[in-house]
Amino acid sequence: MKQLEVKLGRRAYPILIGPGLLGTPAVLSEHAGAAKLLVVTDDVVGPLWVPKLEQGLAGRGYEICVLPGGEEQKTLGNVALIIDALVAARLNRDGMVLALGGGVIGDVAGFAAASYQRGIPIVQLPTTLLAQVDSSVGGKTGVNHPGGKNLIGAFHQPSAVIIDTDTLSTLPDRQLRAGFTEIVKAALVADAEFFSWLEANALRVLARDAEALEEAIRRACAIKAAIVAEDEREQGRRALLNLGHTFGHAIEAGAGYGRVLHGEAVAAGLVLAAELSARIGRLAGSDALRVRELLLSAGLPVDPPRLGRARMLDLMGMDKKVKGGELRLVLLDGIGKATVTTAYPREGLEALLEERAGA
Amino acid sequence: MKQLEVKLGRRAYPILIGPGLLGTPAVLSEHAGAAKLLVVTDDVVGPLWVPKLEQGLAGRGYEICVLPGGEEQKTLGNVALIIDALVAARLNRDGMVLALGGGVIGDVAGFAAASYQRGIPIVQLPTTLLAQVDSSVGGKTGVNHPGGKNLIGAFHQPSAVIIDTDTLSTLPDRQLRAGFTEIVKAALVADAEFFSWLEANALRVLARDAEALEEAIRRACAIKAAIVAEDEREQGRRALLNLGHTFGHAIEAGAGYGRVLHGEAVAAGLVLAAELSARIGRLAGSDALRVRELLLSAGLPVDPPRLGRARMLDLMGMDKKVKGGELRLVLLDGIGKATVTTAYPREGLEALLEERAGA
Repeated sequence: MKQLEVKLGRRAYPILIGPGLLGTPAVLSEHAGAAKLLVVTDDVVGPLWVPKLEQGLAGRGYEICVLPGGEEQKTLGNVALIIDALVAARLNRDGMVLALGGGVIGDVAGFAAASYQRGIPIVQLPTTLLAQVDSSVGGKTGVNHPGGKNLIGAFHQPSAVIIDTDTLSTLPDRQLRAGFTEIVKAALVADAEFFSWLEANALRVLARDAEALEEAIRRACAIKAAIVAEDEREQGRRALLNLGHTFGHAIEAGAGYGRVLHGEAVAAGLVLAAELSARIGRLAGSDALRVRELLLSAGLPVDPPRLGRARMLDLMGMDKKVKGGELRLVLLDGIGKATVTTAYPREGLEALLEERAGA
Repeated sequence: MKQLEVKLGRRAYPILIGPGLLGTPAVLSEHAGAAKLLVVTDDVVGPLWVPKLEQGLAGRGYEICVLPGGEEQKTLGNVALIIDALVAARLNRDGMVLALGGGVIGDVAGFAAASYQRGIPIVQLPTTLLAQVDSSVGGKTGVNHPGGKNLIGAFHQPSAVIIDTDTLSTLPDRQLRAGFTEIVKAALVADAEFFSWLEANALRVLARDAEALEEAIRRACAIKAAIVAEDEREQGRRALLNLGHTFGHAIEAGAGYGRVLHGEAVAAGLVLAAELSARIGRLAGSDALRVRELLLSAGLPVDPPRLGRARMLDLMGMDKKVKGGELRLVLLDGIGKATVTTAYPREGLEALLEERAGA
C-alpha cells in the first residue's frame, strides 16, 4: 500500500492506494470509523463492490443509497435523494458518507455531504481510474445544470481517499482509457519526466499491469495533492488542473451529457490546448504532436466532434473561467509546464476551432 | 450611518446600518460594484423596496428573481430557481447576488450564491428586523427539509451587509416583534448591560423609534459579529447563538413551518432554556422571570404550543446539535452568560416540557 497526504492543515487527509483496501477492516476502521454510515453508490458498482466493502466494515451497520449509473445522474435531484436518505438514517455530524463509485457518485455524494447540516464528513472510495487519479482528490463537488457542467457545487474536502486498485478489474476498457486522460493531464501540467514515463508505459497501464497502474495513480495523485495543498480554492495555481477542460466541458455539453465520456472530451481538449499553444509559439510543435500521439496510442479521441466553431465558443463562454468577458485558457509553455492566460490571439483560437470542430 | 466589521481575515466584511442606505448610490457602488447583478427578492418586499434599490443602483442594469413570500419557500426547489436565473443571466464569479428581503430570501439566495459555480459573492440587504440583527450576518445559509429546518446549507459569508433601517417602516408588527426575539437572544448570550437596556427600551424599539431601533440593531449585530469572527464554522463559541433554538426549531417543525414565526418559536425557546437553567440551579429564578417578562412585554408567545413532551423531544432529537446521542443544549449561567452543555438532568428537561408543552 502506498500513502500520500493532502497537506491542508486542519483539513489534511490521506490518500491510500493499493489492492484489497476495501476489504481490509483495519483500513476502514481507521479511516471510516464514524458511528453511523451512509454508503452512496450506483447500480453498476454497488453489486460488484459492496460485498467487499462489507467485508472491510467487519459487521458494522450501514445504510445505503443506490443511484442509477451514468453522467446524466449528476443532478440536484439526486443530491436531494441522498439528503433524504441522510435524514431517514438520522445521520448527524458524527456520521459519515462513504462514496463508492466513479466521479459522478463522488461528486453528487460529495455535494450532499457538503450541504447536509452545512457539512458532514465523507470518505471517497473511488472505483474508476478517473475518480482515483482526479475527481476524488481535492474536494471539488458538484452537479450539472442544463446551462453547464458542475455549475452547482461546493468545496468540501473528504476525510480520506481510499483507492482500492482491485476495483479497476471490473472497469470497462473505455472507462479505463478515459481515466488515463487525467493522468496525462497531470503530467502535462507539472511533471515532464512523468509524461515521458507515460509514453514508455501507456500500454502497460492500459493492459492493467498492477504495478504500472499503481505507479501511474500514485504519481497523478501526488501532483494533484501538491497543487491542491497550495491552492485549495482555485484562486491561482489549481486552475492549471483545468488544462483541456474549457474545451472538454464545451465538447461534453455540445455532444449532450453522457454521450462522450468526460475523459474522452478532455482528451480532445488537451490536444486543442497543446495545438493552440504550439500555433502561438508557446510550445514546440513536436511537443504538441507528442500529446496527440500519446492520447491516440491510448485509443482516445483526439479531435472534437464537429460542433462548429461558433457553438464551441458559445459553450466555452459559459465556463467558470470567464473573467470580465475575457476567456482565460490553460495553455502549455512546455510539457509539464502549464499556465493560465488570456494572452493568446482570439483569431488563433477561432481558426483552430474552425479547423477541428468545423465552421 | 453606523459601520461594524465582521473580522474574518480574507473574508472580512462590513455591516452598514442607517436610514436610506438602499437608495444611496455611493453605498451601492462601493459595496455592490460587480459588473453583473442578480437581485433576489420576494413578491411582498420587491414591490415595496426594489424602486428604492434602483435609485441606489443609479442606472446600473440588473436581473431580478422574485420568489413568493413565506417560510415555506425556503426550499431546495427555490435554490434551483435562483440558479436557473443565474445561468440565464450568464453570471460568473465576477457577478454578484443582492438578497433583498427577510431571512428566507437571505438564506435561500445565500445558499444559491454559495453553490453556484462553487461560490459567487452575495450582498445581504435585509429588510426584516430578524434578518438585520441575526440571519444576514455570519454566513449561515440554507433551506429546510421535511425532516428538519436548515438541514441543507452552506457557510458562505456575504461581501457586505447593508441594513437600511427605513425598510422596517413597511414591516408588519408581528414580524417586528419576532425580530426583537433575536435581539433579546444576543443580549442573553453575551451582554447583561444590553439586556438591561432592552428592558428599559423595549417599548421604544417596538414603537419603531428610529434612534432606539438603530441602537438595538447595532448592539445585536456587534455581538453576533464578534462571535462569528471568533468561531466562523460553529466549532465552539458560535453554538451559543443557538440559545433557544433547539426548542424553537422543534416548535416550528411541530406547529408546521410557517404557522409560527421563527422569532416567535425562539421566544418560547428562550423562556424554556432560561427556565430549565433556573430549575437546575444554573440561573437565578428571578433572572428566568426577567426573560419571560421582557418577551411577554414585547407581545411574544412565551410558552410552546401543546405538542406534548414526547413529540418535542423527538423533534429536538433531529437537531444538528445532537452529538453521539446526547442532546447538547445552550443554557444560561446568568443573563449575558450562555453555555453549551450536556450536563443537565434528562428528567428535568422532560418535566419542564411536560409542564409547558403537555404530556
